[in-house]
Amino acid sequence: MLKTGTKKPVLGTGFTVLLLFVCCCLVESRYQPTWESLDTRPLPSWYDEAKIGVFMHWGPYSVPGVASEWFWFQWKRNDPNNAGDQSVVQYMNKYYPPDFKYQEFGSQLRAEFFNATEWADIVASSGAKYYVLTSKHHDGFSNWPSSRNFGWNSRDIGPKRDVIGELADAFRADGRVEFGLYHSLFEWFNPLYLQVETFSLFYLDWTYRIIIMFSGNYKPQVLWSDGEWEALDTYWRSKEFLAWLYNDSPVKDTVVANDRWGRDILCKHGDFYTCTDRYNPGVLQKHKWENAMTIDRKSWGYRRNMNLEDILTMEELTETLAMTISCGGNLLMNVGPNSQGSIDTIFQERLRQMGDWLKVNGEAVYSSIPWTVQNDTINSKVWYTIRVDKQSGTLVYGILLDWPLDRQVELGSPEPTANTKISILGSNTTISWKAKEGGGLSLELPPRDEISSNWAWVIRLEELGNAGNNVW
Amino acid sequence: MLKTGTKKPVLGTGFTVLLLFVCCCLVESRYQPTWESLDTRPLPSWYDEAKIGVFMHWGPYSVPGVASEWFWFQWKRNDPNNAGDQSVVQYMNKYYPPDFKYQEFGSQLRAEFFNATEWADIVASSGAKYYVLTSKHHDGFSNWPSSRNFGWNSRDIGPKRDVIGELADAFRADGRVEFGLYHSLFEWFNPLYLQVETFSLFYLDWTYRIIIMFSGNYKPQVLWSDGEWEALDTYWRSKEFLAWLYNDSPVKDTVVANDRWGRDILCKHGDFYTCTDRYNPGVLQKHKWENAMTIDRKSWGYRRNMNLEDILTMEELTETLAMTISCGGNLLMNVGPNSQGSIDTIFQERLRQMGDWLKVNGEAVYSSIPWTVQNDTINSKVWYTIRVDKQSGTLVYGILLDWPLDRQVELGSPEPTANTKISILGSNTTISWKAKEGGGLSLELPPRDEISSNWAWVIRLEELGNAGNNVW
Amino acid sequence: MLKTGTKKPVLGTGFTVLLLFVCCCLVESRYQPTWESLDTRPLPSWYDEAKIGVFMHWGPYSVPGVASEWFWFQWKRNDPNNAGDQSVVQYMNKYYPPDFKYQEFGSQLRAEFFNATEWADIVASSGAKYYVLTSKHHDGFSNWPSSRNFGWNSRDIGPKRDVIGELADAFRADGRVEFGLYHSLFEWFNPLYLQVETFSLFYLDWTYRIIIMFSGNYKPQVLWSDGEWEALDTYWRSKEFLAWLYNDSPVKDTVVANDRWGRDILCKHGDFYTCTDRYNPGVLQKHKWENAMTIDRKSWGYRRNMNLEDILTMEELTETLAMTISCGGNLLMNVGPNSQGSIDTIFQERLRQMGDWLKVNGEAVYSSIPWTVQNDTINSKVWYTIRVDKQSGTLVYGILLDWPLDRQVELGSPEPTANTKISILGSNTTISWKAKEGGGLSLELPPRDEISSNWAWVIRLEELGNAGNNVW
Amino acid sequence: MLKTGTKKPVLGTGFTVLLLFVCCCLVESRYQPTWESLDTRPLPSWYDEAKIGVFMHWGPYSVPGVASEWFWFQWKRNDPNNAGDQSVVQYMNKYYPPDFKYQEFGSQLRAEFFNATEWADIVASSGAKYYVLTSKHHDGFSNWPSSRNFGWNSRDIGPKRDVIGELADAFRADGRVEFGLYHSLFEWFNPLYLQVETFSLFYLDWTYRIIIMFSGNYKPQVLWSDGEWEALDTYWRSKEFLAWLYNDSPVKDTVVANDRWGRDILCKHGDFYTCTDRYNPGVLQKHKWENAMTIDRKSWGYRRNMNLEDILTMEELTETLAMTISCGGNLLMNVGPNSQGSIDTIFQERLRQMGDWLKVNGEAVYSSIPWTVQNDTINSKVWYTIRVDKQSGTLVYGILLDWPLDRQVELGSPEPTANTKISILGSNTTISWKAKEGGGLSLELPPRDEISSNWAWVIRLEELGNAGNNVW
Repeated sequence: MLKTGTKKPVLGTGFTVLLLFVCCCLVESRYQPTWESLDTRPLPSWYDEAKIGVFMHWGPYSVPGVASEWFWFQWKRNDPNNAGDQSVVQYMNKYYPPDFKYQEFGSQLRAEFFNATEWADIVASSGAKYYVLTSKHHDGFSNWPSSRNFGWNSRDIGPKRDVIGELADAFRADGRVEFGLYHSLFEWFNPLYLQVETFSLFYLDWTYRIIIMFSGNYKPQVLWSDGEWEALDTYWRSKEFLAWLYNDSPVKDTVVANDRWGRDILCKHGDFYTCTDRYNPGVLQKHKWENAMTIDRKSWGYRRNMNLEDILTMEELTETLAMTISCGGNLLMNVGPNSQGSIDTIFQERLRQMGDWLKVNGEAVYSSIPWTVQNDTINSKVWYTIRVDKQSGTLVYGILLDWPLDRQVELGSPEPTANTKISILGSNTTISWKAKEGGGLSLELPPRDEISSNWAWVIRLEELGNAGNNVW
Repeated sequence: MLKTGTKKPVLGTGFTVLLLFVCCCLVESRYQPTWESLDTRPLPSWYDEAKIGVFMHWGPYSVPGVASEWFWFQWKRNDPNNAGDQSVVQYMNKYYPPDFKYQEFGSQLRAEFFNATEWADIVASSGAKYYVLTSKHHDGFSNWPSSRNFGWNSRDIGPKRDVIGELADAFRADGRVEFGLYHSLFEWFNPLYLQVETFSLFYLDWTYRIIIMFSGNYKPQVLWSDGEWEALDTYWRSKEFLAWLYNDSPVKDTVVANDRWGRDILCKHGDFYTCTDRYNPGVLQKHKWENAMTIDRKSWGYRRNMNLEDILTMEELTETLAMTISCGGNLLMNVGPNSQGSIDTIFQERLRQMGDWLKVNGEAVYSSIPWTVQNDTINSKVWYTIRVDKQSGTLVYGILLDWPLDRQVELGSPEPTANTKISILGSNTTISWKAKEGGGLSLELPPRDEISSNWAWVIRLEELGNAGNNVW
Repeated sequence: MLKTGTKKPVLGTGFTVLLLFVCCCLVESRYQPTWESLDTRPLPSWYDEAKIGVFMHWGPYSVPGVASEWFWFQWKRNDPNNAGDQSVVQYMNKYYPPDFKYQEFGSQLRAEFFNATEWADIVASSGAKYYVLTSKHHDGFSNWPSSRNFGWNSRDIGPKRDVIGELADAFRADGRVEFGLYHSLFEWFNPLYLQVETFSLFYLDWTYRIIIMFSGNYKPQVLWSDGEWEALDTYWRSKEFLAWLYNDSPVKDTVVANDRWGRDILCKHGDFYTCTDRYNPGVLQKHKWENAMTIDRKSWGYRRNMNLEDILTMEELTETLAMTISCGGNLLMNVGPNSQGSIDTIFQERLRQMGDWLKVNGEAVYSSIPWTVQNDTINSKVWYTIRVDKQSGTLVYGILLDWPLDRQVELGSPEPTANTKISILGSNTTISWKAKEGGGLSLELPPRDEISSNWAWVIRLEELGNAGNNVW
Repeated sequence: MLKTGTKKPVLGTGFTVLLLFVCCCLVESRYQPTWESLDTRPLPSWYDEAKIGVFMHWGPYSVPGVASEWFWFQWKRNDPNNAGDQSVVQYMNKYYPPDFKYQEFGSQLRAEFFNATEWADIVASSGAKYYVLTSKHHDGFSNWPSSRNFGWNSRDIGPKRDVIGELADAFRADGRVEFGLYHSLFEWFNPLYLQVETFSLFYLDWTYRIIIMFSGNYKPQVLWSDGEWEALDTYWRSKEFLAWLYNDSPVKDTVVANDRWGRDILCKHGDFYTCTDRYNPGVLQKHKWENAMTIDRKSWGYRRNMNLEDILTMEELTETLAMTISCGGNLLMNVGPNSQGSIDTIFQERLRQMGDWLKVNGEAVYSSIPWTVQNDTINSKVWYTIRVDKQSGTLVYGILLDWPLDRQVELGSPEPTANTKISILGSNTTISWKAKEGGGLSLELPPRDEISSNWAWVIRLEELGNAGNNVW
């Protein structure tokens, strides 16, 4: 999920029409392979309503479990000014013979405890509504038996199974979480990619893989592209691919695709924008976006030497969630399974804690929409969402990140009326409040005793008797 | 830490005097190698005051990380009626070649992230006051370069370092936690042990190891013996050894030894009694005892396939602590480091959470003594300790495991007077109370808002103006 | 080098013109992609004159070193009636975990002692004039850094070097032996091959590899194709490829290609015919052919459990050579290097013994041609070659496989004249002889003392004073 | 089999009487633990008559198969002036991780093709009459399940079998070859040995092992001690041990022991002297001796990178044999089995070639005795043995190393009479000869044709009609 500074020159290619897709574009109502046309596609509503997803990076880099999922690159393309890279080199020098190659980690990805049903259950327990797995990261290892990756995929070596197939089945059987796939366009060291100037089969190759992937049993509802930055969308044939995806694929009506489809496309085109890793702008965005971040601060892939301080606390996680959804984003929380195919217990705990929190407070999250205000004007530890309900009218939710010891809270943004009723999720107590001069209100929280949440608390404001008449 | 049902016949030996210790017994004031004499030794006070220790099991069994630290035995001595053992056999059949031997795991105990200073810091962060490490478990692998274990110790293979030496130094440099060692007398498969009937060098052997251990730099303050049950104390020469330990060893004045020194000795002799694994009688004991238990419910050694539900919650841990110290025991919480030499983050978290709890509530724990009552007569979720203080007189601490939503607490055991002042640790608020008819009192807790602890709460009762006059 | 009984259905393909080669066929004098045209190509003379080559099979199968180079197939496609296959399955069951995959052997092909210069010297020491190495066998592992074999080639894993490149350079630097390459068209388990019906990239793929191979530094003088039997030459595009090879490749004038280019082509088309493994018909052939055989009777790839009786003796080797060249064939003697990159000493010995024999007797071998008679009419242990020399006229060589204790030899085929002079290679002695009634002659060998050869002896017959007038 | 220059100081030990043996010395007719007494033991005749043995070095050093059986020492105790050692260090640096330990090779000694019956047959095929296997070399690894070597013996790891037990059984079942064992007293890195100054259990330890070995099923007929040079025989308790061996062991009447029993004992005491590795003095010795040498010139242990020129030729082997037995020695030819448990084919070949040679020429070897002359006075390529036969009287054998092209041989040492009959082994031809003036004789060999031996030829001289009257 990191990016390198060096860019390859954009490649001109002789082809101007891709035969595979040329027939797609004859009917008026279909998407054209142009951004102008593709951008007209409405976002499938399920994605905006879902708000929370779980991301997993899993591959041979999970075996050394050192540094990050960029391990291979950090090891072999070390920059003298990059201390992190030096530590990888030294680690390998200390524990492996000089002629050891990254590929040998593939055989060691044994996945002996991998259980797709358990993974699906752990993900669902977090309250997440969608899931994204690395189908192929920059090392090129594929988590399904790709015919393009003879000997470098999860069926030939390591897990010796169709990881994606098992997970797709398990998530569908579970039924609570949509299944999605990450896919890296570029590969660090694949000669087919590196020599692509002279022989352009690589494009056909990766496209073909994705077609297979979609046409087969996997049918991902999220397509999370990456590794796009070294070439233009014309090189990658991204527009043609997306046109096929939206017009003809088995998931054409429901799939959502991100924005990583070629240099300079990021944050400009796509069903949702990811912009940068851990993107979290803090202000409302005009286009649907996603904050893809990771619970281990230091890596997307599993690290065997995590320390507790590297793991986001629930305070940090709930703050990130509040900020993200207030500003119109979705939160995609990443955890890296380990080489034996388990989700580390600390990640299980964070995910279940998030699920517990959402059981109480999910009303402010799922299917919410941003309010006119995101962050309270006088209390920076409060972020807002709203929900429009036929019976209750517009409900405003203030997510309160700190619990004041005196239980006194002042809010600058809401403009209450006499009919305003305030409550706190997880409690039946009605909260007394009074309007502040010059706008806003002050309220006193009930004692914390009865509120089962430990990390962030949601204040709900509703206008009694005003269903449908949004005064907010 | 488990025991097998099969016992070996007790071994008669020709020796009646052990030369090494014969000179110890000439002076009147010395301990004799009899239980009568040894039992007269007073318990070094530091141990009783410490209350909490951290235990670690680390060895070649941490490499497969399946089942438990009894892995080798479970694998090779599988009983057809024991489903757990069958699962180990099947695991090995599936992932290892038929001729794989347990010894090969020794080389794989790579410990690449092992850092004794970090371990000492993590242990200290839990609030524990002592630490016990397996010097040698039943597999015979020693965590120091024992001359008796050529090729089967932590310097020759695996970590390739003197694990005990590094930890002893680190704990002493840190200064917060006493260093101790576990040692198994018997070994499952060591032919020297198995053939001991015909050639009794084994006894000399293990004793010699311990002498070396103590005489060297390690100087453990706790000696936690195990694996004693197959033979009598006379076979093991335990009394002679303890006489040496108490009379002549470098740690003679401060060391504490447990009670696992021969068949039928358990729970009868020793500085402190361990009785059974996870011993927690729930009633006051006449002799100092210890509850050795493990945070992963299923194993003392590291398991790579732990799930979150296998890990004790803080609710469970604080309850166990309260119950243990109320009844006069110490709590020895075990975590198993993994094969790379890290303490799993979930264990780091539990230990730090315990440390956080003790920062607030340690006053009720460290140097406390049992009260006349252990468990409240009408509120079974309250356990008591007391502390006698020159200025404050006797302080009674009620450890409250559940926080009532209405904040109303009734206690049956205290008999308050007009001068009784009640407070809650972690808060400055004075708690109002009233005596109940027929004894006991009722009180109202302050709102939970200001109390930083999340898991158990300590109510302190003191008699104002009555320092030294214990009405309790 | 073995063949399976099962054949795949021949694949029809839509393409009728291969763009890469289409431009080759415009000029009259060029070879057309038809057998009629290709068969008109004269055999480059160096190959016929060379007579002896050394063949090597080297790849991941050299690591288990059990059964043969078909190890993977024998292991995974075991036929219940095939005892050999069962032994492979049992071997793997006994020594490897159940989930072990053949690909993991690739990493273990460490080649730590591989020295291309030494190999070239060992090959040259045998008297061989050409060399053929497996560039890619049926397992698909390539001995050069093929861009089509990311992670499954000798640079990415195992040897971690360009094996072919180093050998090509070493043989050229040595200068005594021509360098050649074996290449398998089909691959047992490559999904690109197995799925070829639906997506015909595989053809382009392998062709491209060979083009790269030829266009690069390797420039093999022998192209030894194999694995052709499952599909027609039209499927493999063999004729187009050979047209390119003969018209445009960097080795177009000197390269020789064998006959394994598609089903039913074997023994019908090609520069030389190989017909079957160990082909040795015993009678004169009309077309140039080669006897590809192996010094370890049981395998082409290295076997770690060779026994001495598995190794051809020099008696057997010289008999095979004599029979082969008498009938117009070349002898290609195979040895399998081991996984550490050494040529086993027993193979070194046989090769050097052959070289020693040829130092004495090479005159009857190199540049020889078959005589009108191959096997003597009355002495089945004598095989003939001839050589036409400007000065000496036609020389006839009778290779005598057994040395008679009485030194009396009768030959039925030569018709000597008064001018016939008979000698034995390796000795200066002139041999006395007399014509037999009814044709042939009888001769008495000199005592064996002075003849340095131990295994087969060559009797030379020349017609004195008849240079240029071949009476034979 | 090499020795280091550095010697340890001789260790004084407090013990003066060894309890185990003290009872042995009470009866007059028994050997006393003094060299004076031990030296009176007559050599069991079978050993002198056997003449040829096969030696094998097999252990964890066979796994790297580099340098020699001193691999561990060469790797870890490298002397800066020793180029060989540097090459070992560099090899390990290149192919193994920095923290790799020699002990890990033990697990890799997989011995998957080990077949004791085949080994016995190969040894017997060489014509050898006894066999010696390393039971424990200087690395301490034992080839039987020694109770002293938990985890560092052939049953616990690597072969996972009782190698010695299987071989002892196989040789006895075969019946052609006596079984013997090599044993190293010292161990390079065993802390029990290195710390022996402070605690003298090591002596008991190794002695106990040997007692077990002899008392069990192994019953070796040869005890080949080594590693003695760092301490005096008094330290090793060698005399006590030998007294037990000769008085009380199960093999007391037949066993032969060599001379490596303590510093300065070599070449002075013992049933036979070995003096130095490859000892071959070239002149008659007064005491029975043995030339222990190795067919791979460079190592006693298996080397994976042997080259053909490292292997002794049959010319060299027969010369060594002739010289050795002429001077009263036995020849102990060493080959190193490889890590998979096979005897390399080149060794199989040399052993079978030696067997073939002995089938023809064994008459001059087995049960022969030295003559008054060893090396012919005028033909340095002839070495003599004799045999005294009831019927034929004394037979003199001249082992002729070179076959003269003119078949003329002159011998200076024999003094023939008119009755002297000369023949050559392997032929029925009587050789004509004539006495030379001034002594000796000249003879003409028959043509070599009929003599089946290729490498050395034995001329037999007998005095017709003089049975029992040795004129020689």
